[in-house]
Amino acid sequence: MTIHPIDVILHKRDGFSLSDEEIHSFVRALVERTPDRLLVTDAQIAAFLMAVFLNGLNPSELASLTREMRFSGDTFDAAPLKTFTIDKHSTGGVGDKTSLLIAPVLAAAGLAHPTPEGVPGICVPMISGRSLGHTGGTLDKLETIPGFNTQLDLPRMAETLRRCGAALIGQTPRIVPADRILYALRDHTGTVESPFLINASIMSKKLAESLNALVLDVKVGSGAFMPSYERSKYLAELMVQTGEASGTRTVALLTGMDEPLGRFSGNWIEVWECVDIMRGRRHPLSSDLIELSNALSGWMLHLAGRASSPQEGALLADRILTSGEAYEAWLKIVQAQGGDTSLFDDPAAHHHPAATRTLKATETGYLSSMDCKQVGWAVQRLGAGRAKPADPVDAHAGIESHAKLGDRIEAGQPLFTLFSSDERLLDEPEQMLSETIRIEPDAPVKQPLIREIVSAASLQSAS
Amino acid sequence: MTIHPIDVILHKRDGFSLSDEEIHSFVRALVERTPDRLLVTDAQIAAFLMAVFLNGLNPSELASLTREMRFSGDTFDAAPLKTFTIDKHSTGGVGDKTSLLIAPVLAAAGLAHPTPEGVPGICVPMISGRSLGHTGGTLDKLETIPGFNTQLDLPRMAETLRRCGAALIGQTPRIVPADRILYALRDHTGTVESPFLINASIMSKKLAESLNALVLDVKVGSGAFMPSYERSKYLAELMVQTGEASGTRTVALLTGMDEPLGRFSGNWIEVWECVDIMRGRRHPLSSDLIELSNALSGWMLHLAGRASSPQEGALLADRILTSGEAYEAWLKIVQAQGGDTSLFDDPAAHHHPAATRTLKATETGYLSSMDCKQVGWAVQRLGAGRAKPADPVDAHAGIESHAKLGDRIEAGQPLFTLFSSDERLLDEPEQMLSETIRIEPDAPVKQPLIREIVSAASLQSAS
Repeated sequence: MTIHPIDVILHKRDGFSLSDEEIHSFVRALVERTPDRLLVTDAQIAAFLMAVFLNGLNPSELASLTREMRFSGDTFDAAPLKTFTIDKHSTGGVGDKTSLLIAPVLAAAGLAHPTPEGVPGICVPMISGRSLGHTGGTLDKLETIPGFNTQLDLPRMAETLRRCGAALIGQTPRIVPADRILYALRDHTGTVESPFLINASIMSKKLAESLNALVLDVKVGSGAFMPSYERSKYLAELMVQTGEASGTRTVALLTGMDEPLGRFSGNWIEVWECVDIMRGRRHPLSSDLIELSNALSGWMLHLAGRASSPQEGALLADRILTSGEAYEAWLKIVQAQGGDTSLFDDPAAHHHPAATRTLKATETGYLSSMDCKQVGWAVQRLGAGRAKPADPVDAHAGIESHAKLGDRIEAGQPLFTLFSSDERLLDEPEQMLSETIRIEPDAPVKQPLIREIVSAASLQSAS
Repeated sequence: MTIHPIDVILHKRDGFSLSDEEIHSFVRALVERTPDRLLVTDAQIAAFLMAVFLNGLNPSELASLTREMRFSGDTFDAAPLKTFTIDKHSTGGVGDKTSLLIAPVLAAAGLAHPTPEGVPGICVPMISGRSLGHTGGTLDKLETIPGFNTQLDLPRMAETLRRCGAALIGQTPRIVPADRILYALRDHTGTVESPFLINASIMSKKLAESLNALVLDVKVGSGAFMPSYERSKYLAELMVQTGEASGTRTVALLTGMDEPLGRFSGNWIEVWECVDIMRGRRHPLSSDLIELSNALSGWMLHLAGRASSPQEGALLADRILTSGEAYEAWLKIVQAQGGDTSLFDDPAAHHHPAATRTLKATETGYLSSMDCKQVGWAVQRLGAGRAKPADPVDAHAGIESHAKLGDRIEAGQPLFTLFSSDERLLDEPEQMLSETIRIEPDAPVKQPLIREIVSAASLQSAS
């Protein structure tokens, strides 16, 4: 019997639980439709998305939707590699470049201990995204490296993993095509912030990488997509449940996104910051970035069996960063993907913003708060992001942070330097930044960067 | 400041009350969009409709949406006629042909008492619809009269009213265009049965007729669109509130739709049934139709000041039907709209179904129940309705009822005669009818046809 999309919409609308068959047929209709054969219309998909947004999905429906999306197109098959596959995913932040450190750290750990077949003992098949809303995108950052090719197909990704222990690629049209269709519609129908739809979108893509383990960085605070700590935590719980139910060991870290992470927020300047760290040049403003990167890498090394605890894993990650092993792995990955590594000798020399402006403090006190989402939008408006999906991004746009929350500030001290390729793009972001910065007479209470861990064990003890 | 459709969707999704400006700009975007300038996409409209379906509209939002839709295109201006304008609207039923009796009855009452300027003292500017779902449509019935033109523009409608006291026309593309767009999308996105959206759809069109008064026939029972008595009553209350708030005296009758109304359900056969009644040939199976028509006309005559009570109005309506005055008015209207009245001399002679089949009772007892929606679908599948919006309807398709609920039935006695222009279309409807008919040993408890009256007064005493 054919299940019509309209019946699936009506059932979700009326609060019934959708069957596996209903979800299967809806996702198939989505993927198999053609302009001549509109098995389901955009309007029907939008109605379905809004019904899911408002009525939610129960665990069985959510598992079914995630599974159907995961298998809606090509999936990466890691079995022939006979190795331990692991990835990290962040819900999106400002200046969040941990992927550029974590992939090399894990690759280095894997290269140091190959399998009997000579494959790195840990592989990171990392499929990343582009800048979205107020947040940056790993692909946009990587593509500022001349020649770096993020559009590898799956066989080439496997080959890169075999040689380097990590591959950093973009979603192809054939990987989880259902998500591409749903995502484009969610963005303009007001159905983005549903924990159920976010879970299905993220987890379908990550599980399509055929992972043994996954570490999630779920942002909380003013720069997070989720509007409250509780909503972020609920999303983390859903994703851990979904991952574990699919046989992927899954852990989520709830981490603060109240200010840009590290020193730079943009595209090339974020690569520069990571190269500096991997070459042993740690700028004081990069400490939060290094702390978060090590915590995430630590969990990954622990799950991969290389450390007896996440804490020990974090220490190991820091040693790999310091020793130059991560940098070696990084060069290997960049070269394997066609990137020119000669720029890394002096990354600052390749930062060429046509226009620069420095925002200075107008009063003395402590840097007490900012709306980090607004800061992210300022970065995007400088040219680091896109107004429309097909627009190019400006490699040189972005901001440099000169202070962190809680720092003592003297009037006249620089707070941010703004970079853009177009002088005219500086005014609005400068205004946005100066509006959102608060300097108060008293030092604010500083929150830890890592707020909480959600794991199968924490969920079990909570229930 | 421009209000973007996405923000209206987000506000409704998140349970905020929409402002008049937000609803205004959303409806304008709907009406003013062009293929080159998609101010709002189908997907966005669908998301909005589902958010309204699930989160509802408060009285102020509902009034605003109805008003914006009402004024989204051309409206009929009755002021130059200087008469009392009134209409009736039904939420849709099977065999429901009361409009074909009520318009002539009210027109006759108006013609009998012209204004000082010589216009009928009551005018019925009736804008009707086509068959929809399992229900029949007044326009489809009228168009079986050769030459009858339902596509009058508004100046020609005014002229017809001036001469005949009633005009029976279809919605033009320029009357309430917002409803045409919303309706087409609601139908395939599962957002039809919202009392808020139904109210806005019906009342925007009726109020665009510039009415002094409106009587609503809100169906309850197995043949009604609304799934329960409570939901039908809630819809009736919303419509009465909306009408009254717009200065149109509005009354709703909750009436039973548990079996087809009258003797025939189809297109030409329904015209035939009404012509018979107006010419004084009352078939016993038409009694429920006459009762309902008189009750609705009675309320209309009362609201128009021609009867001191609805009951007295019903008696007056019955006298107008019996005296031949209604038939005279009917001939006048049909002629004014180009219809050939010669067929009315022997309407049975113009019923030419190519295929006929009679469904007989297989047991003895009392006709106790049927799913009237299923009966309606059987009528549609015989060819009286459309599978796609642009399809023609079969003038000769339909059914004749030979018994009413509660009637004593002998095995072998005919229950329905089925008519179609295509022999092959008989099987499925015959099956549908035989499946839904229940004959039980005991007589069922018969419910009154008119269940309840909702008016400004009843709402006030209830609150």
